[in-house]
Amino acid sequence: MSDLKKIVEAILEFRNERDWEQFHNPKDLALAINVEAAELLELFLWKNPENVNIDRVKEELADVFTYSILLAEKYGFDIAEIVFEKLKKNAEKYPVDKSKGNAKKYNEF
Amino acid sequence: MSDLKKIVEAILEFRNERDWEQFHNPKDLALAINVEAAELLELFLWKNPENVNIDRVKEELADVFTYSILLAEKYGFDIAEIVFEKLKKNAEKYPVDKSKGNAKKYNEF
Amino acid sequence: MSDLKKIVEAILEFRNERDWEQFHNPKDLALAINVEAAELLELFLWKNPENVNIDRVKEELADVFTYSILLAEKYGFDIAEIVFEKLKKNAEKYPVDKSKGNAKKYNEF
Amino acid sequence: MSDLKKIVEAILEFRNERDWEQFHNPKDLALAINVEAAELLELFLWKNPENVNIDRVKEELADVFTYSILLAEKYGFDIAEIVFEKLKKNAEKYPVDKSKGNAKKYNEF
Repeated sequence: MSDLKKIVEAILEFRNERDWEQFHNPKDLALAINVEAAELLELFLWKNPENVNIDRVKEELADVFTYSILLAEKYGFDIAEIVFEKLKKNAEKYPVDKSKGNAKKYNEF
Repeated sequence: MSDLKKIVEAILEFRNERDWEQFHNPKDLALAINVEAAELLELFLWKNPENVNIDRVKEELADVFTYSILLAEKYGFDIAEIVFEKLKKNAEKYPVDKSKGNAKKYNEF
Repeated sequence: MSDLKKIVEAILEFRNERDWEQFHNPKDLALAINVEAAELLELFLWKNPENVNIDRVKEELADVFTYSILLAEKYGFDIAEIVFEKLKKNAEKYPVDKSKGNAKKYNEF
Repeated sequence: MSDLKKIVEAILEFRNERDWEQFHNPKDLALAINVEAAELLELFLWKNPENVNIDRVKEELADVFTYSILLAEKYGFDIAEIVFEKLKKNAEKYPVDKSKGNAKKYNEF
């Protein structure tokens, strides 16, 4: 089994043991991703990155992955596929010659 | 190569071709995750989940994965490992007998 | 009329002319606040504060205020009152002698 | 003194007693607004609006106002002015005849 598939299965097993799929509609999953992303962000608040609690970063980032995977699963998305497709789109929006070495948004070129 | 590793490599190649690692300090990556998570959330705003543009969900969710992977890479986290560790912690905070079929937070049991 | 009341009235008039109250349930208003807060955050992404577009900050911050006011209005909150009450609570969580000159969270004292 | 001014003064007094202005650069204030907005959002997670803890909504919404006011103060924005200006802009983006009774985004008309 692929390693990504193993993660997905572990998350689904965790969810199903608790009978939580009933709460996991896509809108609330998108909310949950935002809540976890902000808990991750809070670890950096008022701080330089070098003073951040890395063990807490691990945990909050893991939560972002978990809810993102649950939302992907809800829609039947193949995670590898949607990431590759988006990279392809981004490569068009951010051609190497225009974006190399600068952080401008594509609509600011 | 594992499928997760393939995704990570494609993202890093995209980043390196554009010489963007210089901008990707952990704090700004945490910001980027929040920005993308909110773009995902906006797709659900004022809507029932069934009216959401699923192609746009794919794209925004892919962006959340991409920046989450970049942050994990920055710290050298093994994504499978941090997710499994967090699931284990969550299993302690949310024992099946207390959490089955309800969405209460662990501090509300 | 107080200046805060004038802002609230202008926002409600804008909403009512467009018949938008029907979409403004508290949950979606909380989503909207997050979406606007993240648009504000995006202006700072990959940047030092001095390179930020201040006119855009004005606009996105105004949007955060607008949806926050709409949510307060939805619940009939008096904005001055809830802010004063929270400051009082925070003064207990963050006594001057423990918090002066440091940015620790109250649970880290 | 106007009521908005009274709120601003109380918040600044709270900040200055704790000598916290040193942490309140605009970028971190924008982060703080996002963190508080997400704490507000979490109150609605997995729930219908009618099951939400309204006292907690008061508190988290007050925090969003507080950091938004601190950011406005940082840039010397007049809150009433930026809200009125944005409403004017929004009135152009969302003319009554096109937006009445629907929640479409201006780029979807």
